[in-house]
Amino acid sequence: MESRYILSVLVEDNSGVLAKVVGLFSRRGFNIHSLAVGVTNIEGVSRITIEVIGDKLIVEQISKQLNKLVDVIKIKVSKSDELVKRGLLLIKVKISPKNRTDVIQIADIFRAKIVDVSQTTLTAELTGDESKINAFMEMLQPYGIEETAMTGMIALERGTNALKA
Amino acid sequence: MESRYILSVLVEDNSGVLAKVVGLFSRRGFNIHSLAVGVTNIEGVSRITIEVIGDKLIVEQISKQLNKLVDVIKIKVSKSDELVKRGLLLIKVKISPKNRTDVIQIADIFRAKIVDVSQTTLTAELTGDESKINAFMEMLQPYGIEETAMTGMIALERGTNALKA
Repeated sequence: MESRYILSVLVEDNSGVLAKVVGLFSRRGFNIHSLAVGVTNIEGVSRITIEVIGDKLIVEQISKQLNKLVDVIKIKVSKSDELVKRGLLLIKVKISPKNRTDVIQIADIFRAKIVDVSQTTLTAELTGDESKINAFMEMLQPYGIEETAMTGMIALERGTNALKA
Repeated sequence: MESRYILSVLVEDNSGVLAKVVGLFSRRGFNIHSLAVGVTNIEGVSRITIEVIGDKLIVEQISKQLNKLVDVIKIKVSKSDELVKRGLLLIKVKISPKNRTDVIQIADIFRAKIVDVSQTTLTAELTGDESKINAFMEMLQPYGIEETAMTGMIALERGTNALKA
């Protein structure tokens, strides 16, 4: 049965490590649904968060392959819905004097933050899971979306468990 | 002279495109400082945001090479400080009954959102540029950081300009 999984991968912060990790997925024709990479609080250690939709056995196989890469320090595989999962959206929308208040109201309801405004455009920032981000974009669609940029999802376990290098 | 640049790359959402883009950087030994990838409001189009530190000429060369990839629709190269730039941090910190109020106060000052709490840990979400995220982590360091996950930076131009597929 296909489910959503999150692979949290701690890696040595070497040039080329991301290419190796991503290459492993693409060589197997395995589609990455979302990917985020960033440094951590530990010097020299980055964390790659990969969301995939697939069969449990195949995800476990890939996790084993990743573990063989020299730059990989540690991996945790979790079911996607068991984690606190967040992504970030920046979105630029057309506004007019007539509908500006409506757009600001929608932003308020979603607790989006307005980060830039011009006579004819408004740029907002929103964090949330995929469904919240999609709902926000759908609400803004009628006004005319000029541009969006989105991060991949990052995720931590609830409670005290932690993935440490 | 070395500066920070943001490459915003619109790509066809095909399996393997991320591996190709990232591979192009790693083959040239060019270090990616930060990378974010996500879907856009346009079906089938993803946006990859890459932050690099380097020489203008080399960045332009890489941009030309990227443009030759069949899956690449459009690229914009900007100086990093000319954009609205945001990333997302999830951070889990140790707390005790004695210092919990202090930790919550720091989160409030940074306008971080508390997304999970247990008897001994607190998990918060923060958006901002790299310096804000780093300042927040530094303030929490003394309490004991259990775990962090961070996205790459995403960025949009201020005002009305937009990168469209």
